[in-house]
Amino acid sequence: MTSVCSTAPSSGRWCRAQSSTKDRTRPADCTMVNQGPRADPVWGSDSSAGSASGGDSSKESSRCSTPVLDADRSDRLREKMRRRTESGDHWFSLEFFPPRTASGAVNLISRFDRMGAGGPLFIDITWHPSGDPGSDKETSSMMIASTAVNYCGLESVLHLTCCNQSIDTINTHLRKAQRLGLKNIMALRGDPVGTDWEEEEEGFNFAVDLVKHIRSEFGDYFDICVAGYPTGHPEADSYHSDLQHLQEKVSAGADFIITQLFFRAETFLTFVKDCRALGISCPILPGIFPIQGYQSLRQLVKLSKLEVPEEITKVIEPIKDNDAAIRNYGIHQAVQMCRVLLDSGAVPGLHFYTLNREVATMEVLRGLGLWQEDPRRPLPWAVSAHPKRRVEDVRPIFWASRPKSYIYRTQDWDEFPNGRWGNSSSPAFGELNDYYLFYLKSKSSKAALLQMWGAELHSEKSVFEVFTSYIAALPNHTGHRVLCLPWNDEPLAPETNLLKDQLQRVNQRGVLTINSQPNINGKSSTDPIVGWGPPGGYVFQKAYLEFFTSSENVTALLKVLKKYEPRVNYHIVNVHGRNLTNAPDMQPNAVTWGIFPGREIVQPTVVDPVSFMFWKDEAFALWIEQWAKLYEDESPSRMIVQYIHDNYFLVNLVDNDFPLESCLWQVLEDMFELLQSELRPRLLPLQAVELLPPHSGSSPCRLLNSSPLHSGSSPCRLLNSSPLTAAPPPAGC
Amino acid sequence: MTSVCSTAPSSGRWCRAQSSTKDRTRPADCTMVNQGPRADPVWGSDSSAGSASGGDSSKESSRCSTPVLDADRSDRLREKMRRRTESGDHWFSLEFFPPRTASGAVNLISRFDRMGAGGPLFIDITWHPSGDPGSDKETSSMMIASTAVNYCGLESVLHLTCCNQSIDTINTHLRKAQRLGLKNIMALRGDPVGTDWEEEEEGFNFAVDLVKHIRSEFGDYFDICVAGYPTGHPEADSYHSDLQHLQEKVSAGADFIITQLFFRAETFLTFVKDCRALGISCPILPGIFPIQGYQSLRQLVKLSKLEVPEEITKVIEPIKDNDAAIRNYGIHQAVQMCRVLLDSGAVPGLHFYTLNREVATMEVLRGLGLWQEDPRRPLPWAVSAHPKRRVEDVRPIFWASRPKSYIYRTQDWDEFPNGRWGNSSSPAFGELNDYYLFYLKSKSSKAALLQMWGAELHSEKSVFEVFTSYIAALPNHTGHRVLCLPWNDEPLAPETNLLKDQLQRVNQRGVLTINSQPNINGKSSTDPIVGWGPPGGYVFQKAYLEFFTSSENVTALLKVLKKYEPRVNYHIVNVHGRNLTNAPDMQPNAVTWGIFPGREIVQPTVVDPVSFMFWKDEAFALWIEQWAKLYEDESPSRMIVQYIHDNYFLVNLVDNDFPLESCLWQVLEDMFELLQSELRPRLLPLQAVELLPPHSGSSPCRLLNSSPLHSGSSPCRLLNSSPLTAAPPPAGC
Repeated sequence: MTSVCSTAPSSGRWCRAQSSTKDRTRPADCTMVNQGPRADPVWGSDSSAGSASGGDSSKESSRCSTPVLDADRSDRLREKMRRRTESGDHWFSLEFFPPRTASGAVNLISRFDRMGAGGPLFIDITWHPSGDPGSDKETSSMMIASTAVNYCGLESVLHLTCCNQSIDTINTHLRKAQRLGLKNIMALRGDPVGTDWEEEEEGFNFAVDLVKHIRSEFGDYFDICVAGYPTGHPEADSYHSDLQHLQEKVSAGADFIITQLFFRAETFLTFVKDCRALGISCPILPGIFPIQGYQSLRQLVKLSKLEVPEEITKVIEPIKDNDAAIRNYGIHQAVQMCRVLLDSGAVPGLHFYTLNREVATMEVLRGLGLWQEDPRRPLPWAVSAHPKRRVEDVRPIFWASRPKSYIYRTQDWDEFPNGRWGNSSSPAFGELNDYYLFYLKSKSSKAALLQMWGAELHSEKSVFEVFTSYIAALPNHTGHRVLCLPWNDEPLAPETNLLKDQLQRVNQRGVLTINSQPNINGKSSTDPIVGWGPPGGYVFQKAYLEFFTSSENVTALLKVLKKYEPRVNYHIVNVHGRNLTNAPDMQPNAVTWGIFPGREIVQPTVVDPVSFMFWKDEAFALWIEQWAKLYEDESPSRMIVQYIHDNYFLVNLVDNDFPLESCLWQVLEDMFELLQSELRPRLLPLQAVELLPPHSGSSPCRLLNSSPLHSGSSPCRLLNSSPLTAAPPPAGC
Repeated sequence: MTSVCSTAPSSGRWCRAQSSTKDRTRPADCTMVNQGPRADPVWGSDSSAGSASGGDSSKESSRCSTPVLDADRSDRLREKMRRRTESGDHWFSLEFFPPRTASGAVNLISRFDRMGAGGPLFIDITWHPSGDPGSDKETSSMMIASTAVNYCGLESVLHLTCCNQSIDTINTHLRKAQRLGLKNIMALRGDPVGTDWEEEEEGFNFAVDLVKHIRSEFGDYFDICVAGYPTGHPEADSYHSDLQHLQEKVSAGADFIITQLFFRAETFLTFVKDCRALGISCPILPGIFPIQGYQSLRQLVKLSKLEVPEEITKVIEPIKDNDAAIRNYGIHQAVQMCRVLLDSGAVPGLHFYTLNREVATMEVLRGLGLWQEDPRRPLPWAVSAHPKRRVEDVRPIFWASRPKSYIYRTQDWDEFPNGRWGNSSSPAFGELNDYYLFYLKSKSSKAALLQMWGAELHSEKSVFEVFTSYIAALPNHTGHRVLCLPWNDEPLAPETNLLKDQLQRVNQRGVLTINSQPNINGKSSTDPIVGWGPPGGYVFQKAYLEFFTSSENVTALLKVLKKYEPRVNYHIVNVHGRNLTNAPDMQPNAVTWGIFPGREIVQPTVVDPVSFMFWKDEAFALWIEQWAKLYEDESPSRMIVQYIHDNYFLVNLVDNDFPLESCLWQVLEDMFELLQSELRPRLLPLQAVELLPPHSGSSPCRLLNSSPLHSGSSPCRLLNSSPLTAAPPPAGC
């Protein structure tokens, strides 16, 4: 007998539950479970009039507690499910299987981000004993689930099979899951290895054994899900005996049930009625499988021994060669069935077997009105779902485009927030050298990056052009659109688009922006672009701009900034850590905050001088790791990037006068003007450093033009011998 | 020989330093010292460009740290002095002596508040061994200095004399001072008792012994001040030997010197030059004594053995019967002399012997431009100077008019803030029954209170009229202005005056307001009325209103408030603690906050549901303790107040939509309208409860009119049997 489980249909990797009918036959609970993580924000239930005083304020410690913006965030999955169910609010969850390759993992994680935006209550990740699912490999079930929780902020359920596993192995997996912040387990038997499987006296023979073990070893730590079979497990003696096994699993401590797929709503509804009759009272989530193709359906039928009802085959057979038609039908059929399920009142939420694909499931959810097109953001940045990070309510603005890197580098923190309310003297950021995990790498290939950033750079100006093309979202001179930069793996955020014209102008002139936000003076918290937090609130921002620029520019900028005291705060640092700032007492500057009904002020984004020094290391390193290394050693292109890395400064500016129009563009205009006026007497234009291709014997880098910008004994040294320029000349000089 | 010390000229209580010239004669350092506590806010020195990263962030713990709005606040006195001196900023300090009576203490503390507003760097309190100066009496030096520090927020120096004191006594005093938050000691010898004083071998014979003892027993905890004599101490062998004694005191660990008074600038400047020549490098503050009257000057001369220069006597003798003329001359003379001192460059600050009077010193300071007419507020409320409260940056709004009560009730807290960022589950507020300290009592006499609040009350309406007169600042029907209420010992704040008309209207109708603030949407932090915090910032407020009102009104109000969800948050409680609220998760609601350059958001005032329950006890108790008890037991007046105490609700309302005009007045209008419309069908006007004067035999309280508001078996019970009304009838029924 065969059941569809953790299917990978595109690869034909169906797991088979080999039969082995024993006295007490148990189905191989090899179901796919699918729980979406990002509940839509339930803003700390407003206690209705008449509530008594007291509340259940955290007893944790005297540490700063997050204003409870999102009570949901601290709830465990079963609580969220209960709350959503009680409110009559329908929800959905999504099942994925682990990818086979590293690039598959990168793609899947992008998919998590995209599908997470639709607001699943949870996702789940299947478990394949043959695929080393508990390892540290980037493709393992364990690591994928951990990534979903920690980096994508998705409530996640990790499958775990117990068949043929030792207690030690099981415990190792569970402890690792706990350590990684996973809180939910789908307890399954799994497929016995070989055809002659026999029950082991002391071992795990059935899912119920695993449920019992988790409860006895880990108490109430995990929420446990088990599999249910609306038509009975193919291996079960009977539909009724299968129901009894299910009842045992629930009695052993399971919190909810996800079912195998089915084709008719009545099948599921009858199953639920039978479960209830047996006393099973926990949530039962229907497993929904939108038909996505003729071949995949045939394969499913063959493997799962499920019968496709005639009303479906009758439609499909005539259009079997028309993939689009079948997919459309699949969506239509799933929507119809889901409507019946939801209308029955017996179904609080729907579980989707996505087969790691996006379109069909999203279409069904859209058809049902369950997909959140415009999900409310609890905070301006995506919150992590790790239990340790529940109270996290502030982050430095620097990692705004690299949130996963921030999460990775702060994963060892004992408490959040750090670097702000708390002791900010020693936030221990993870070392740079171990964070180049696969999911922090660019999604683009080296070839694509070279097309975007230039197969050959001729001068700093070539770099300016890359930045400008990225901002403008226009093709570069070779006709390729620049879709990412080392500091931004995605196109510009809608919010940043508001600043596009100004950004373009300054990038052309060598102010290489990598992060910015406009000022906002009390927009509604439900504003589609800049809103976040509970409704009825007001959000604010101070204008922020962060960029790399040359030491000449910085020298002029510092002169200009004197005129903008105390309106503009700045931090200016080079790769060696030389730090210039006018921040009072090295305090953080809150640059995003919100005012909400009945709550304290929330200030989720700060310009924090301490963490800026950690960001600086990362931001400079990205020049080399992601860009310079695309080119050969000692190539001019590489040396140009290396030169920028060695000599440019990283600058951030905050305009504190948020009610007024941002003055930061004027600051830069003033800087350009000052530079021009200083150059004018010499009647020479401002020009960027250009490097010749290396040739043996002589110095590999020489200035193409000996403009007043450059001179000195080494041809590569900057003319400007201001104290700011302490960097060595580019390698090779 | 006699020296002027800790003088109480109005009472003629000059302390005399009896001579006892021994081998090593030391002056009785019975100087008056005067250090003003409230430095004007130095907003965390802006680190200039070029400061290295790191800062010196607090290592304290992971508790929430105050955004450093006012670095000055955490500095010790000698640091403040150094910083002000280095900045070339002139400052002043004020000396007071302890009062003789409790009412004198109340007056002196009011004077602290008024003179504190002028911005003294510190104040000092003299020490009179005969007056039990270290006791817990409200008039003791110890308690006055403690009050100045803890309740008035003044940096204070406590004098301490050591002559004829045992080590144990001295240690007891010093430990007590430390416990009370005092950090500065003026170490003096004091007057030996009796004429035949002899040095004790093991005892404290001179101030230098006390300085040494403090340093050896308390290390660097205290800042120590000693006395200097510009013309030599009257008991000293010579001017030069006196200078050597001073040098010894400084060497022993004194931080600065305050001098005896003098009449010519040259006297002081020569003295300073001589001190510097001897190697005394610490600050030397000139003691300034503005001549305030002919008799007091004569007495001073007689006791201090100081010689009044001829140029002064020449002016004064002819006008000796014209007090005003002498005072004017005294001010003029002091201003002239101070100008010379300040212009010399040798004088960073001036120390004033106030003789516990305000006018002369204030006039001199105004003449010199040192009096801060419009001192900047670091926070919207006056900060306490107790070292434990350095990080305090938030308070519940409820105690806005009773800050001393709040400080008293939270004096045992281990850390600040409490009840907000931290664990808010158990803020331990001091018990109500022990906080009726003399300085929490009304400044007005019982007779004055009866004139203001009514010698006889006839109904609740009489109470409404008292509130209305207070708000309107108009005479009541007996022609007396109501200058205070039990909840407000001062006339309305300028800010509240903005709401005067609306407040008056609702008080007339039985909405008895005790606290309110208007909404503010981003006014400058330097706004003279509502500004606070560093310059360049923006301050905000949510509209707030707190009042007592009847249960009928509350019933209507609750209906009305449904229309204002979630815009308006409310807490409604009666004396029994029945609490109605729509606060989400019992979280605090920030109602005052500020956004400043380069800093985190500061939110110094919150509506905190937890502390509201503690405030409720205090607010209700004030009806009885301060008002009802003015009347005889069982008198109708007392019973009316008691009835209100037993049956009214305390309500607070917050309008969360701070950018819009406050809706709270409309909420109340809607409530009144609803009450009217509910009454209209019965054709009866809304009328307040009225009580007849008691007469023997029958029930002492009976309703004057049996309007539909009242009925039931007891004549005193409210008709309205809503679940809100659970209070017993007034005593006597």
